[in-house]
Amino acid sequence: MAEYTPVPLLMAAEQFAKLPGIGMKTAQRLAYHILTLPIDSAKEFAAGVLMARESVRFCVKCQNFTSSNLESDLETENLQNQVCLCVICQDEHNRNHKVICVVESPKDVSVFERTGGFNGVYHVLHGLLSPIDGTHPEDLRIRELMERLTENVDEIIMATNPTVEGEATATYIGRLVKTVGAGEIKVTRLAYGLPAGAALEFADDVTLTRALENRNEI
Amino acid sequence: MAEYTPVPLLMAAEQFAKLPGIGMKTAQRLAYHILTLPIDSAKEFAAGVLMARESVRFCVKCQNFTSSNLESDLETENLQNQVCLCVICQDEHNRNHKVICVVESPKDVSVFERTGGFNGVYHVLHGLLSPIDGTHPEDLRIRELMERLTENVDEIIMATNPTVEGEATATYIGRLVKTVGAGEIKVTRLAYGLPAGAALEFADDVTLTRALENRNEI
Repeated sequence: MAEYTPVPLLMAAEQFAKLPGIGMKTAQRLAYHILTLPIDSAKEFAAGVLMARESVRFCVKCQNFTSSNLESDLETENLQNQVCLCVICQDEHNRNHKVICVVESPKDVSVFERTGGFNGVYHVLHGLLSPIDGTHPEDLRIRELMERLTENVDEIIMATNPTVEGEATATYIGRLVKTVGAGEIKVTRLAYGLPAGAALEFADDVTLTRALENRNEI
Repeated sequence: MAEYTPVPLLMAAEQFAKLPGIGMKTAQRLAYHILTLPIDSAKEFAAGVLMARESVRFCVKCQNFTSSNLESDLETENLQNQVCLCVICQDEHNRNHKVICVVESPKDVSVFERTGGFNGVYHVLHGLLSPIDGTHPEDLRIRELMERLTENVDEIIMATNPTVEGEATATYIGRLVKTVGAGEIKVTRLAYGLPAGAALEFADDVTLTRALENRNEI
């Protein structure tokens, strides 16, 4: 006897299974939940998700997600290509626009903002170089970063992840910035070392070696 | 500095966080995925989920999910209240309509169908009795089950989960069936015992006691 799953359940599960980290079992559980919701709640869910996607814009400067300004939406004819700035890039008083922290994704901006320890601005690459996955420099927002260097920039902090792809991207962009900036722009990289609260015995060799190399006088 | 998350990301994450088993971290990850999708894929996701919910009907007999028949949709004026039968209830040749397996949810129907070992029909309660959670007999599809007893029914198999709520529901419905059926309808319960492939040492006391009580001659 063939497996029996009602068609609407399959339809909804198929959509959920497309999401990252959602397998077929979880997708069916979510689909089941949606099918037992009142129709208005299901509509609200679908509309909420779609509206979020439709309202999202990229900041013309840092390329982070931002939402469109409703008033300016009404004034411009082309909503999709509307020019908008995120709240961080708009802030001329509290943010140092001469220091740009380059990150992989909008999530990383949230992480830095949560620490409250950085008052510069950001640049979101929307990915990392990974030739093996087919991600080349032209797929990232590197051109937009280079355009920002014509403004008065003192420092570029490469804040990509400490992974192979993160390192490669940091090195690639670092060289590019030095060339474009004619050596006048400082390029820095996040420090490697022991994570706070970690036990020495569980630290891997690379981390431990770097922590030793970059030791500070106390 | 306050936490910084772009508005569209929050909007989408809020919707995902409403789903069962999806926490705020996962919701943000899913939201991030949706925001980076091409707009057409996002539309397809939202439309697919909503269409599934809109096309779902309940089988008038077993109360399982079923989808509407497009042709009959065109003939009837009121789509929502349209009368439809699921494929299992429609099958007069291969299914024994005198044996009804009563389950908690449509998922359980899929589970039994996967085994291929049952050729009767089903009845989906859409929940279990749980006074503490405010689920009373009138919240389940018990009335619909009683209506089916007027047809020629030999046996009701109570196939609810072996939990407190599952047991209570099985006992409650079992008594009701005996009263309504004037003792002519057999009421059975799924067997308790050791799960296949289990190790005796890990079996809990209740399971082991029941396995001993219900031992079979070999």
